[in-house]
Order: sequence, then C-alpha cells, then structure tokens
Amino acid sequence: MLKTMLEAVREKHPLIHNITNYVTSHDCANILLAVGASPIMADELSEVEEITSLCGGLNINLGTLNQITIPSMFAAGKKANTLGHPVVLDPVGAGASALRTQTARKLLDEVGFSVIRGNISEIKAIFTGSGNTKGVDAEVSDRVTEDNLPQTVGFAKEFAKKYHSVAAITGEIDLVTDGSVTYIIRNGDPMMEQITGAGCQLSALTAAFVTANPEQTLEAAAAAVCMMGLCGEIAKKNLKPDEGNAAYSQKIIDAAYRLTPDELERYLKYEMR
Amino acid sequence: MLKTMLEAVREKHPLIHNITNYVTSHDCANILLAVGASPIMADELSEVEEITSLCGGLNINLGTLNQITIPSMFAAGKKANTLGHPVVLDPVGAGASALRTQTARKLLDEVGFSVIRGNISEIKAIFTGSGNTKGVDAEVSDRVTEDNLPQTVGFAKEFAKKYHSVAAITGEIDLVTDGSVTYIIRNGDPMMEQITGAGCQLSALTAAFVTANPEQTLEAAAAAVCMMGLCGEIAKKNLKPDEGNAAYSQKIIDAAYRLTPDELERYLKYEMR
Amino acid sequence: MLKTMLEAVREKHPLIHNITNYVTSHDCANILLAVGASPIMADELSEVEEITSLCGGLNINLGTLNQITIPSMFAAGKKANTLGHPVVLDPVGAGASALRTQTARKLLDEVGFSVIRGNISEIKAIFTGSGNTKGVDAEVSDRVTEDNLPQTVGFAKEFAKKYHSVAAITGEIDLVTDGSVTYIIRNGDPMMEQITGAGCQLSALTAAFVTANPEQTLEAAAAAVCMMGLCGEIAKKNLKPDEGNAAYSQKIIDAAYRLTPDELERYLKYEMR
Repeated sequence: MLKTMLEAVREKHPLIHNITNYVTSHDCANILLAVGASPIMADELSEVEEITSLCGGLNINLGTLNQITIPSMFAAGKKANTLGHPVVLDPVGAGASALRTQTARKLLDEVGFSVIRGNISEIKAIFTGSGNTKGVDAEVSDRVTEDNLPQTVGFAKEFAKKYHSVAAITGEIDLVTDGSVTYIIRNGDPMMEQITGAGCQLSALTAAFVTANPEQTLEAAAAAVCMMGLCGEIAKKNLKPDEGNAAYSQKIIDAAYRLTPDELERYLKYEMR
Repeated sequence: MLKTMLEAVREKHPLIHNITNYVTSHDCANILLAVGASPIMADELSEVEEITSLCGGLNINLGTLNQITIPSMFAAGKKANTLGHPVVLDPVGAGASALRTQTARKLLDEVGFSVIRGNISEIKAIFTGSGNTKGVDAEVSDRVTEDNLPQTVGFAKEFAKKYHSVAAITGEIDLVTDGSVTYIIRNGDPMMEQITGAGCQLSALTAAFVTANPEQTLEAAAAAVCMMGLCGEIAKKNLKPDEGNAAYSQKIIDAAYRLTPDELERYLKYEMR
Repeated sequence: MLKTMLEAVREKHPLIHNITNYVTSHDCANILLAVGASPIMADELSEVEEITSLCGGLNINLGTLNQITIPSMFAAGKKANTLGHPVVLDPVGAGASALRTQTARKLLDEVGFSVIRGNISEIKAIFTGSGNTKGVDAEVSDRVTEDNLPQTVGFAKEFAKKYHSVAAITGEIDLVTDGSVTYIIRNGDPMMEQITGAGCQLSALTAAFVTANPEQTLEAAAAAVCMMGLCGEIAKKNLKPDEGNAAYSQKIIDAAYRLTPDELERYLKYEMR
C-alpha cells in the first residue's frame, strides 16, 4: 500500500539537502515542509559535503546551474553515495543546452542516483540525444500518450536499467520504473503545466519519500508521483472562478499539507505492468 | 487594436529566455505562463547563447546582477541580435550603483534592444546621470505627473531615439514611445508599488508580447503595459479586507491568467501623442 | 510603548539593503514593503558598498551563502559600520557547516551588529560550539522552554554582552536582550515552523525597525519580534480549512500589511526581566 510511504515521511521528518535553482526553491522548501520533511538549500562547494552528511537525502536539480554550483553537485552526490543516502536527480532542461545534457550525463556516470525524475524530453536527451526539449517543458512530439505507452514503458525500463536507478518520467501519464516493474500513474491535472516548478517540487517530494522509505525506492517514488498529481487535482477543485495559476500553485502545496495517507490511498490512480 | 497583441501571445506561446534576478524570477515565470508564454531562466555563460537560440525572445534584468551573470547578459544579447530575436532590457536599480548604471549603458552600446522598460529614475540615470534612484524605486522628485507630462514625453522620445528602441517608462502614468508616437497609459493601481517585482513581471510580459508580435514592437509594448496595469486594477478589486500585498501580488498573476483580449481592449486607458 | 516603533517604520519608510539567500528573498522583500519599508537586494562585491550607502540599514543573512556573496557581506557590513547604519545578522544554519559557523563568527569579529537574530541552536553554535543545529531549524534538545528559561535568559545576556549587540533568539518563546534588559515574548504560532523563511522575514523586519528607531535598538528589535509573532497568530486565525502552509505564509505578510500600531500594542505578549 502506497499510503505507508507517506506515513513514513510524516513520522520520520527527513531532512533533505537541495542543490537547486533559484526560481522554484521557495516552493520546493514549502512542499517539503508541507509533507512533514525539512529542507536545507546549500550549494557552496566548501560546505556541501558537510551539509549533505547532516541530512538524510539529497536532491540535485539542474535548473539555473552555473560554474559555482556544478562542482557542488558532484561533491555532494559523491558524499551522499559514500554515506548511503538516497540521491534524486532532476535534469531540468537536459537537451536545451549541451551544458545541461552533459552535466546530467556526467552526474549519472559519477554519482549513483536512487531516482531520476524528469519529463520525457529530458530523459530522451540524456539517453539517446533524440529528445526535443522545448526549454524546460517536454516537446509535444515526445509526449507519453496511450498510443505510444507500450514503447515508452519499454524505453523507461531500458533507461532505468542502464543507470541502475528508478526512472520517474512525468507528464500527462507518469511512468515510474526500476527496469522491472512499472507504475503507470494517471493522477494529475493539465493545469500543472501552467505553473512554474511542479516538476521541481515533485523531485524534492520524491527525495523526501525515498529517504523516509530506504528499502522501497520504487514504491516511494511512485507514491510521491501519485501524491503530486493528486495535489494537482485537489488544487484544481479548490480553484475559484477569479483565480489563476498563481493561486493554483499555492493550492498544490496547501493540498500536500492537508493530504492524509488514507486520502492518498483512496484517490491514487495507477496500474502496474 | 491592442487586443490582437494579446491574442498573438496566447496563440504563439513564445518561449522567453530570462537572465534575471533571484528575487522575482518565480513571479516572472508564472506571469509568462499566465499569459500563454513559456519561461526559461538560464544565466551561465557557457549555455546562454544556446538557450537564447532555442527561444523566441530574451529578457535581461539587472536586479541582483553579479560577476557571473553580467558576461552572460552580453553574450546572450549579442546572440539574440544575430538571430533577430527581440531583446528587452530592465535596468533595475540603474542610478543606485555605478555598476548598474554602467552595465546598462554598456549593454545599450553593445546590444540592440527592442524595448527598454524601467522607472523614470532608472531611465534618467542611464540617459543623463541625473536620476535620483531610491534603491529600486523611482524617486518622488522624478515622478511623471500631469504637470511634467509634456517635458517627460519629450524626454522619453529623445531617449528612444538615441537607443533606436521603444522606451517604456512606467509609474503612476506610463509612457511607451518609439521616439515618434507615444502611448500615454493610465491603467494601474498605486498598490502595485507595494509589492516586489511588478516592474520585473512587466518586463517579462513585454518580452512575450514583442516576441509574439515581431512587426509591431511599439503596439506590443504598449499592450503589455496596459495589461499589467489592468491586472493591477483587477487584483485590487478582488482583494478582500483581510488581505495585503502578498495576496495582491498573487492576484495580479491570476488576473493575467484570466484576462481575455476583449477585456483588455475594453478596459485599457491610453491616449496617443 | 512598542507601538511607536511600528509608527516610525510606517512614517520613515527605511530603505533596507539585504544580502540574503535566494530561497526566501521574495518574502523578505514583500514583508519589508508590507510594513512600509523598501527593500533592495544586492550581493555583488563591486556594488555593495555603494548600495548600502544609499540605504538606511543592512540585513545580512547567511542562507545560501557562497564564495561570491561572503566577501560582499564583509564589505557591506564594514561600510555600514563606517556610516553608522544599523546592521542585522541572521546566521542561518550556523552549526550546520563549518563555513556557516566560521563566517558568522568572523563577521561578528569584524563587523559591529546592532542585532543578531537566530534560533537557539544557531546562537549556541556561534557562542559555544555546542548547538545541535538540525539543518536550518533548532534542535529539540536546544529549545527554549519554561523550564530552562532562567538559564537561557542568562545565556542570551552573555551572548549579547560578548558581541555588544542585541540578541534576538526566537522560537516557541522569544528572547530579546541587550545583555541587561530582556524581553521574553510569547507571541507566535507553532505553524510558523512549517513555512520556509519566517526567521528570514523577521530579520528583514528587524532591520527595518532598528533603522527607523536608531536610538532604541532593543525596543525596536522587541517590537519586530512581537509583530512577526502576532502576524503568525493573525494568519492562523485567517486560515481556512482547505488551506495549508503556502496560504499561511502569504497570510503572515498580509497581516503585516494590515497591522496597525494600536493593534500591535493591544495584542503583544511580553514580560521584561
């Protein structure tokens, strides 16, 4: 039952080290607090190993990466590996620049990741160089649909196997796989594409879930993906006629704050393949 | 009709590259999404040319500029010029430090800008060195009033002519001019001065408007200015008695999300000189 | 009467220079505007002395400090000292890394601070090396309670005396002391720990209060602490059943925007020892 994943987060209050972008860091911090975890953002090379040692898990996000923060990602990732801490990678904008694609690939070569969470274009860019990243959003031609689902599940499994990681490829339909078992998740709302940072928030949430559930990385990542989508659905229901995407963004975090494990269990929509 | 400017944004979904400050980047991203555009924030020198090539327009904002991001502004600006992409400059805090004034002037020397969007003190600081920038807000003595309107329109035209650019000087009364025709815009609400980032959001919005309307830069910039002011008016009407500037800030973006081209046309308040 | 402290902020509109983290800078800017002050964020070494000269007060916050911003903290702090401007230190995460602890200590050695505002673990880490900082939150074993209040007041006084500064140690119970007189403040709400940035906002607010009340640093800092706590209480009362920590965060700033000096006076809860 995926609800136990959320219960563990709320009980254990995992402390998550985030090396992340300045655009959505506030949302990432607040959704971590909403779910019962604690955030710390730190990206200076001379302190990241110490900070990550203090934490339970690490979330590396490539949005607004720069020459100061990239070395910190490698140092923190390697330290977290040494300590056995779970590490999540969000390869924001992989495919949009050589720097992002290469940084993501080099991180995957040198650091072991528990979960890689991205959109389909980002994941394709890393794996095959064929993704059509449109900035930080997935290109329409790449999108996961009912029609291309079998092939995409196959692709996701290959990706997960190659990197010995759980792959969480999110969009209209979400896929979470360890290369063997795949969760196909249909929670979520189209309006989530009209706010900044839904993906970043999900990656932070995933880090909290896998940190609190160290023996069940696949299930923990699937629960985080279901929860984020469900919060998007709840936020949509709570949206008033004069409200737009800014209010919607706040309501997603508010939904995460209020969501109980039983509600998560009741409303999650997934099948396993 | 200015409403066609908004229609073009909603139809074309322009992708906007933002090199901007960390204080208001989240708002800039969300107002771009609200209006139907897509944001990408990227300020690392080794990727900005590639990122800007992928986008339709570029928004350069001097808030929280630093030694890492300044060279990126020049590189991205020149690349956008080469590609014929519109570029918007928001000289946040010009006049408040020599670094900001000089960076703005050097950018204007080396990069062609479609629109320069600032408050009157920032624009004066760049043009004549006489602006009295009070931090990031316009100094009271500089403010555009009905009394000094004729002189200020003249000043705005000179400024626009000098830099072969549309000047958008915003405050209680907004002026948008290409050096020949001037829009005098009276949309807006005084409460917009009590939130952080209204100017930054307007600059991002302007980038989206001029990118979606490449042959009509003056009209597109005027439409963006009207829209931002109108969203400030709508947000004010939607403000509840126990709400303050934080709720107000959110409601501006929400208003942008809901605003239709017909509503924009109906409520805009401008005259042309 | 502490209400005159707020009256002075609303009358004088102090301009506050913030060298702060990218996670909560937006909230810091908006709470400064809410209270009637003006924010400017600037952390580039080549401009910080000029920026701080333009302002009335300086707020230095160690969250997301890095090799670019640390020298700026020293330069701005020393310049502010030369000019006689009040300076506030928020040693975010002191104790969580050697870099943060040492930067805080070095700043305290080289810059004179009007107020040091932190949680008990951060203050202990600076003073004795014994704090158990859990990331950016105070460790449970450190927390100020009714039982350990006499000892903690003594500790706070020693700390304030050592650094010739007002110490504002905040948590469930807040202590504000100049080493001689101590305000014990019981405003606030436990939900303030479930948002990011309440401490950062309080430090920014404190900078505004001490800048507007230059002869009454202790009273000004106490008033800021009471006000932040009271805003947390008001926000809690205004929270609707489907709202969570994101809405709560916004409502704190909204409460600051609406709060009158008389309301502050009526609802503040403190005793002096």
